[in-house]
Amino acid sequence: MYLGEKLIKREPFRWGIVGGGKTSQVGYKHRLGAMRDNTSFLLTAAAFDVDAERCREFGVSLGMDADRCYPDYKTMFEEEAKREDGIEVVDVATPNFLHYEVTKAALEAGLHVICEKPLFFEAEQGEEIKKLAEEKGKIVAVTYGFSGFDMLKQMRAMVTSGKLGKINMIELRYAHGFGCDPEGDVKSEGQKWRVNPAKVGKAFVLGDLSTHTYYMSQLICPDQKLKEVLCDRQAFVGSRYPLEDNAYVLMHYEDGAVGRMWCSCVNAGDMSSQHIRIVGSKASLEWNDARPDVVKYQIQGQPEQLLYRGLDYLDASAQEDERIGALHYTGLIDSWSNLYKRFAVVMDAKDRGDEETVKNVIYPDLDHGIDGIKWINACAESADKGAVWVQV
Amino acid sequence: MYLGEKLIKREPFRWGIVGGGKTSQVGYKHRLGAMRDNTSFLLTAAAFDVDAERCREFGVSLGMDADRCYPDYKTMFEEEAKREDGIEVVDVATPNFLHYEVTKAALEAGLHVICEKPLFFEAEQGEEIKKLAEEKGKIVAVTYGFSGFDMLKQMRAMVTSGKLGKINMIELRYAHGFGCDPEGDVKSEGQKWRVNPAKVGKAFVLGDLSTHTYYMSQLICPDQKLKEVLCDRQAFVGSRYPLEDNAYVLMHYEDGAVGRMWCSCVNAGDMSSQHIRIVGSKASLEWNDARPDVVKYQIQGQPEQLLYRGLDYLDASAQEDERIGALHYTGLIDSWSNLYKRFAVVMDAKDRGDEETVKNVIYPDLDHGIDGIKWINACAESADKGAVWVQV
Amino acid sequence: MYLGEKLIKREPFRWGIVGGGKTSQVGYKHRLGAMRDNTSFLLTAAAFDVDAERCREFGVSLGMDADRCYPDYKTMFEEEAKREDGIEVVDVATPNFLHYEVTKAALEAGLHVICEKPLFFEAEQGEEIKKLAEEKGKIVAVTYGFSGFDMLKQMRAMVTSGKLGKINMIELRYAHGFGCDPEGDVKSEGQKWRVNPAKVGKAFVLGDLSTHTYYMSQLICPDQKLKEVLCDRQAFVGSRYPLEDNAYVLMHYEDGAVGRMWCSCVNAGDMSSQHIRIVGSKASLEWNDARPDVVKYQIQGQPEQLLYRGLDYLDASAQEDERIGALHYTGLIDSWSNLYKRFAVVMDAKDRGDEETVKNVIYPDLDHGIDGIKWINACAESADKGAVWVQV
Amino acid sequence: MYLGEKLIKREPFRWGIVGGGKTSQVGYKHRLGAMRDNTSFLLTAAAFDVDAERCREFGVSLGMDADRCYPDYKTMFEEEAKREDGIEVVDVATPNFLHYEVTKAALEAGLHVICEKPLFFEAEQGEEIKKLAEEKGKIVAVTYGFSGFDMLKQMRAMVTSGKLGKINMIELRYAHGFGCDPEGDVKSEGQKWRVNPAKVGKAFVLGDLSTHTYYMSQLICPDQKLKEVLCDRQAFVGSRYPLEDNAYVLMHYEDGAVGRMWCSCVNAGDMSSQHIRIVGSKASLEWNDARPDVVKYQIQGQPEQLLYRGLDYLDASAQEDERIGALHYTGLIDSWSNLYKRFAVVMDAKDRGDEETVKNVIYPDLDHGIDGIKWINACAESADKGAVWVQV
Repeated sequence: MYLGEKLIKREPFRWGIVGGGKTSQVGYKHRLGAMRDNTSFLLTAAAFDVDAERCREFGVSLGMDADRCYPDYKTMFEEEAKREDGIEVVDVATPNFLHYEVTKAALEAGLHVICEKPLFFEAEQGEEIKKLAEEKGKIVAVTYGFSGFDMLKQMRAMVTSGKLGKINMIELRYAHGFGCDPEGDVKSEGQKWRVNPAKVGKAFVLGDLSTHTYYMSQLICPDQKLKEVLCDRQAFVGSRYPLEDNAYVLMHYEDGAVGRMWCSCVNAGDMSSQHIRIVGSKASLEWNDARPDVVKYQIQGQPEQLLYRGLDYLDASAQEDERIGALHYTGLIDSWSNLYKRFAVVMDAKDRGDEETVKNVIYPDLDHGIDGIKWINACAESADKGAVWVQV
Repeated sequence: MYLGEKLIKREPFRWGIVGGGKTSQVGYKHRLGAMRDNTSFLLTAAAFDVDAERCREFGVSLGMDADRCYPDYKTMFEEEAKREDGIEVVDVATPNFLHYEVTKAALEAGLHVICEKPLFFEAEQGEEIKKLAEEKGKIVAVTYGFSGFDMLKQMRAMVTSGKLGKINMIELRYAHGFGCDPEGDVKSEGQKWRVNPAKVGKAFVLGDLSTHTYYMSQLICPDQKLKEVLCDRQAFVGSRYPLEDNAYVLMHYEDGAVGRMWCSCVNAGDMSSQHIRIVGSKASLEWNDARPDVVKYQIQGQPEQLLYRGLDYLDASAQEDERIGALHYTGLIDSWSNLYKRFAVVMDAKDRGDEETVKNVIYPDLDHGIDGIKWINACAESADKGAVWVQV
Repeated sequence: MYLGEKLIKREPFRWGIVGGGKTSQVGYKHRLGAMRDNTSFLLTAAAFDVDAERCREFGVSLGMDADRCYPDYKTMFEEEAKREDGIEVVDVATPNFLHYEVTKAALEAGLHVICEKPLFFEAEQGEEIKKLAEEKGKIVAVTYGFSGFDMLKQMRAMVTSGKLGKINMIELRYAHGFGCDPEGDVKSEGQKWRVNPAKVGKAFVLGDLSTHTYYMSQLICPDQKLKEVLCDRQAFVGSRYPLEDNAYVLMHYEDGAVGRMWCSCVNAGDMSSQHIRIVGSKASLEWNDARPDVVKYQIQGQPEQLLYRGLDYLDASAQEDERIGALHYTGLIDSWSNLYKRFAVVMDAKDRGDEETVKNVIYPDLDHGIDGIKWINACAESADKGAVWVQV
Repeated sequence: MYLGEKLIKREPFRWGIVGGGKTSQVGYKHRLGAMRDNTSFLLTAAAFDVDAERCREFGVSLGMDADRCYPDYKTMFEEEAKREDGIEVVDVATPNFLHYEVTKAALEAGLHVICEKPLFFEAEQGEEIKKLAEEKGKIVAVTYGFSGFDMLKQMRAMVTSGKLGKINMIELRYAHGFGCDPEGDVKSEGQKWRVNPAKVGKAFVLGDLSTHTYYMSQLICPDQKLKEVLCDRQAFVGSRYPLEDNAYVLMHYEDGAVGRMWCSCVNAGDMSSQHIRIVGSKASLEWNDARPDVVKYQIQGQPEQLLYRGLDYLDASAQEDERIGALHYTGLIDSWSNLYKRFAVVMDAKDRGDEETVKNVIYPDLDHGIDGIKWINACAESADKGAVWVQV
C-alpha cells in the first residue's frame, strides 16, 4: 500500500497553473490532484484568470506568494524563466481554445505540460506539438481526470490477459442532465464558453464528456484500434446548435469489435455518470464512476462477480496506487491524485532520460490527447453529414 | 385490488394452443398467463407438437382430455368446430414461420387469436390478416409477455400527462448472453429454429428480443411515431450470418425525439435483461424487468424518486391489475396473467359488440404486431445497406 | 425445468378454504398458489366469510358452484363429508384465533390441512394436533408463503454442504412501515383483528411477520437449534400495547451461533421487506425477497458472487421447481405455487403410505408450525420480563 | 462551493503527529486529511514510531526535515517547545493505551490535540483531560474519520427540523469480515495490538468500529440521549477472548426511542461497511459509507427519495464543505479533509477567544470522545454480566 512516500528522488516539481481560478471547478481538482502528498508538485506560480486582480486575490487566498500570481501566462513564463526557482511544469486549465497556444508557449519555455482535455482543435496541432515536445524533451500529459481509478487498471489487466475472450463490444456512456436548463448557458461562467464554438471547438458534449470515457476505454482495451465512427447528434436546447447537447456514436474497431457511446448533458435527472461495459466472447466487465471501487465481472453461465479495490486478488497494477485500505471507498479526487502521481514519475523519468519508465507508465499522454481530437472531429463530421461512417 | 373475480359475464373462453409443447419454455408462460384465475380461459384443446404422440402425452400430463390433443392445428380447428363446446380462442406459440398461416386459419375458423411475437414476416401479411379479422369480428392479440407489468402503465400515465416535459430520448435494451455458446444453436430445440432464416425470418435477436422492448416503448409513449431507423448488426457467432446475434439501432421520431435500441444474445454474463429509459426535457423514467415493480423517476435538480407497485400514489391505471398488495413483489408470470386478463376483456367486448371497450383496453393488438414486423424489416434493411437511415 | 405437468398420479385434490374471502388479501395468494397448474388442487368448496351471503357472492364471482359456498366451516365439513366428491384438503386462512379449532375439526373430518401462520396460540395445542394428525394419517402444512422461492433451497444446500464453514450468525429482518398510520388499526378489516389480543394472541408483528423469516432461517439452516431468545418490544403506536409494532430479538443457538431478528410494521417507508443473512466462519449468504432470484455469496477475501435462479451452477434442489427459465424473474406468487406443489406431493405420498417421500419433501410442516408458536411465546415472555434470556 | 481557500486568517497551524508511521494505515489518512489544502495545517514534526531510525526514514520519505523526526513524543514536545516555529497542534495516532498520556502531555505543552478514537480507557480520564483542556484553552478533537461526509449534515438537518417526525429507531452497523482469519492477529502489526487488552482496553470491535458509527448517530440525532444499553458479545476467533470480534447492542434512549448496533470483524465477506438508518414516526433516512454521497429518504406512503451530494435542494450545512461539484463522487479521504477543515476553524477560533464559533462548529469534540468511552465500557459491562441493561 502506498502511504504518500516520495516517488521521485528529487525535490517536488515547481508547478504553475494557467486558468482554473475562482470561477473554475476543475482548477481545484487539478490542485487537489497535484498537491495531495506535497512530495511531487508544489504550487508555485499561477495565471489563474483574465482578471489580474482576481488572480492575485485568489492566489493569496490559497496561501500563494502574491508576486507569483501573474496577469497572464506569457508574463508568467517570462518571469518564472528568470528565476532560479522558476516553475518546471505548467498546468493548462483554460477554456479549450487556449490549450494549443499555452501548451506551445510552455514547451518553448522548457516546461512539462499537463493540459486539460480535449487537447486542441485539430489533430495537426497535436502532431506539431508532439514534434516540439520531442525536441524539447518534455512531457505533455492530458487530464482525463477519471482515468486514475485503481479498478480501471484491473480491467485493463483482465482484458489484456484474455479473461474476457475476444473483445466484441465496448459500451460507453457519459450522460447527465445538468445542461437541461438553458439558463445555465447564459448565467454560469463555467458553462458559457462551453457552448460557444469559437472557444470550445466543433463540439460541446462530445468534447466535454465523451473524450473522458473514450480515453478510459483505450486505457482498458489498449489493443483495440478504432476504425470508424457514425454519429447522430442533437441540440435539444436549440440555441446550442450547431453544437450538440446529446450525441449517439456507433463504433467499428479494426478487428471486428463494435461499440457505442452516449454522451449527453440533457439526460434529465440522471446521477449515474460514466458507465463502461466491455463485452468479450466469454465474459464482460462493467464499471461506473458513481461506485468506482467496484468492477462487475460476468462470465457467461457462472455466478456474477464483484471485485473490490484494495484486495489481494487484484492484479498488482491495480494495487500500486492503493492508499487507504480495503473496505474504505475512494472518490474522484483519489483518481486525480493517482494521475498526478503518475505524471510526476514520468516527468522525472523524462528529465533523467529514463525512457523505459516513460514508456511503461500508464497515463494519458500526448498520443491519447491526439486520439481525443480525432474522435471529436470524426464524430462531428459524421453527424454533420447525416450520420454516416467516417474514418478516424 | 383485484382478487381473481370474474371479469367477463360469461363462462371462461374455451382456449386452445398450437405449439408450446414439451420442448417449449414459452408455452408454459402462455398457460400460466391464461389459466391464472380459471375465470377467463380454460385449456381445452391443443396441437402442442409436430409429434402427435408427444403432444398427446404432454396434454395428458397437464390433465387434458387426450381426445382434444390433436396431431396438428388443422385437425384441431376442424374437429373443434364440430363440437358444441369447441374452442373459441387459439394461442399460436409456434416458431415464427407458422404464425401467419395458423392465424389465418384460426380467423377463418372463427376464433380469436393470441399470437407469439414477432407476428409475421411481412407487413403485407399483417394488413391482410387485419382485413380478415375485421371481417370475422375477431381479435388478434400479440404476446409481448413483458408488457403486462403494472408499472408500465404508470410510466404511460406519467408520460402522457406531461410529467417529463417533451419526450427527447427513448433508450431501449434487451441484451443478454445466453447465445454466447454456439453449441446452443445445434443442441437446443428452442434455439435451433431461431437461427434458421427459413423459420425465423430476416432477423434473430431483432425479432426475438427487440420487438418486446420496442412494443413496451410504444405502450409507454403512445404518441411517439417512429420515422426512421439506422441499424448496425453483427453475427459474433459467425455461423449465424446473415442473421445477427447483436444489433445496435438508432431511431428518429417524427417530432424530433431520438432513441436507441441494443439487442443482443452475446452480451456475455449480463443478467439484467430489459431496460427502458425515457428522457424528457424536465425529467426521466427508468425501468428494468429484473425489478419490474420499481420505476425510477428523476426530475432534473430534485431528489431522485423510486415508485413502487401497489401504492396509492400511483395512477389508477397502474393499480387496476394489482393483485398481491404493496411490499410484495411480482415476476414475469404476473405480467403474462395481466396480459391474458386484458385479452379476455377485449375478446368478450368484441363478441358483445362493445367497441368502446375494445378501443380502451391497453394491450398489444394487431397494429402493434404489424409495427413490430416493420421494425424488424426496417432494421434488417438498414443493416444490410451498411447502417443507413431507413423509413419505417 | 418444470412445465406444469401433473406431479401426482391421481386427480387433483378437491380443495376447500375457510376464510380468505373478499376482504382478505392473503386468500387470493392461497388460491393462486393452489390453482396454478390445475393439476394438484381444484377449488371445490369454501367458507370464505362470517357473512354467508358475502361468501356465496364471492364464490360465484370466482366461478364456484354457489351450493358449495358455505356459511361456516362446520357446515362445510359436514356437507362435504356427505358427498362422494367432497373436499379432501382444507385451507385455513382465518384470523389466528380460529386456526386451532378449524384445524382440529378438519382433521377429525379426515382432511389434510394447510394452515396460515402462526399456527396456534400455544405449543400444547400444537402437540395435541400433532397426535391427532398422526392418528388420522393426515398432513398439516403451514403457509409460510415466502418459503417457496427456489433460491432458499440453494442457500440450504450451500449451508449444509459446508460452503460457509461453521455457521456463526443468523441475521433476520422483516420490517416495513405499513403500520405507521394508527388509522389502519381501525379502518382496515385485515388490520383490525391483528391488533386485538383476543384474535391474534400474544403478539402482533412477532407473529405476523417474524415467524415467516424465522421459518425461512430454519429451512436454510436445518441443523441450527435455537436455545434461547432475548426480546425487546415496543408499541410505537401506543394503542397497540400490550402488543408490539416493533421488536428486536437476540438469539443463541445450541452450538454457539448467535442471531438477531428485527420485525416491525413502523419502519417508516421501507420497501425492502425480508432480509436474511447467514454468516459462516468462511463465507456468508444474503437474500432479500424484493429480489428473490438472487443470492449474494461472499467468501472472505474473494470477489463477491451473485447467484441467479435458473442457472446450471445451482444445486439440483434449487432447480426442481424452476418453471420460467433463467433471465426471467419470479415473484411472491411463484413462491406460493412452489409451496402448494410440494404440499400436493406430500399429501399424495401420505395417502399412499409413502413415508419416505413425506420425510424428504422440504416444506413447512407441523413441527415448524409448533416451532413458530414457541418462538412467538418465548419472545413475548422475554420482552414482558424486561428483555431477559428465555429458553425456547 | 469550497475551492480550497484559506479559512483561517493566519498561517497554517504547524502540525505534529505521534504514531501513524510506516506500519500504520490510519496515519496516512490523518496526513491526507490535514494537508489537503496546505492552508490549514503543515506537517512539521513527527514521532512516528517506537523505532527512531524508522521514524526518521519515514519522515524523510515524506519530504520532512530529518531533525524534526523525533524518537518519541516527549522529546518532540520538549524540542519543539524550544523553537519559535514549534508545533501548535499534535495528532495522536498511536495504539489506544497511549492516547491518554500523550494527550495529557500535549495539553501540558500547550498544544491543541487531535486524537484517534476511542479516546481513552476510562471516562474519568476524559473528565480530567477536559478540565486540563479548559485550563489551557485548547481543543481536543477526536478523529471519527467517517464523520466528515457532507450528507451526514444533511441528515442532521432533516432530523432536527422534524422531517422524520418523532425519532423511534436508530439502526447502526459496522460489520465487516477482515478479522475472519486468526492469522491476522499474529502477523499484522496493525492488528496485533488491537487484540491485546493491555493495549486496546476492554473491547476490540466495540472500540475499533462501533464508536465511529455511534458518534455518527449522535451527529445526526443530536437530541437523542442514550439511557441504557444491552450487549451480547462473542469471540468467534476464540483466542480473542475476553475481547470480542462480534457484538450486538440494544439501546434505549431517554425519550423512548430504541436502537441497535451490530459491530463485527467476522462478518465474512461483507464489503458494505457502515450503515445508519434513522426511523421516525413519519419517515426514515438511510446512509451507507460505501456510497457516502447518497441518502435514502423514505416517507411512509410516498415514493422513496434519493438525495445526492452537491445539489441545491440540500440544506446549507450540507453544502458548506462541498468541493467537487454534483455528479462527482467523494470517498473516505474527502471526509477526513472536511474534518480537518473544521478542526482548523475551531482551533483558530479557540486561540482567538471566539467561543461562539467554537460552540457552533459541528465536529467530534472531547465530550463526544467521552461518550465513546462510556459507550464501550457500558457495552462491555453489559456483555460480561450476561447481556443485561446497563446505564450509560
